[in-house]
Amino acid sequence: MIDFACKEFDLDEVIKCSLGLTKADYRLMLYFINGKDEWTTTTDLSKKLRLTLSTIQRCVKSLHEKNILDRHQENLDGGGYVFIYKLKNKQELKNRVNNTIHSWVQKFDKELDKW
Amino acid sequence: MIDFACKEFDLDEVIKCSLGLTKADYRLMLYFINGKDEWTTTTDLSKKLRLTLSTIQRCVKSLHEKNILDRHQENLDGGGYVFIYKLKNKQELKNRVNNTIHSWVQKFDKELDKW
Repeated sequence: MIDFACKEFDLDEVIKCSLGLTKADYRLMLYFINGKDEWTTTTDLSKKLRLTLSTIQRCVKSLHEKNILDRHQENLDGGGYVFIYKLKNKQELKNRVNNTIHSWVQKFDKELDKW
Repeated sequence: MIDFACKEFDLDEVIKCSLGLTKADYRLMLYFINGKDEWTTTTDLSKKLRLTLSTIQRCVKSLHEKNILDRHQENLDGGGYVFIYKLKNKQELKNRVNNTIHSWVQKFDKELDKW
């Protein structure tokens, strides 16, 4: 727990908020962060995380739009294709969270300046 | 209201917390900040703020210890003396609050770094 202005925060909460993620989005992102660095299908993710396929699909869409996951189209032997996903870059993610935290703090600086 | 990690803060709360003040301490400090820059006795403060003399005495003691108020001993004509108080320096106070906010943020930076 981290103290900020007499309120308690845990880092997970802060990261989730700074990236604008839902609880499921965040869980999925953590799965990629802690897992092997390999391309994964939504079907696999659904099994591993025990979340419905539609939840997983909503999450990967959101994480891909937020540039957290890379998406790749894999053609199937019998025709058609599936999308596969992989974490983009953890360090870049950390930098992004860091920048957001600092932009929040700037608002305090500005208000304090006017005080 | 300022948003930080999906929680709302108002600046008063943050200033109060960063300086470790009670509600009454903070009210007294604001009185000095918004009032005329003149030496004042605890009796005067008690009347102006409608707080008991013992509350005021506890507050000025705390604000003096925290280097927010200056204290001066005024000798009385008939012998004896009273303490009089004045705000030290608003800009220095703002800097102090600012430094504290940034020290809180450093804890996030450190935790994030380990993440």
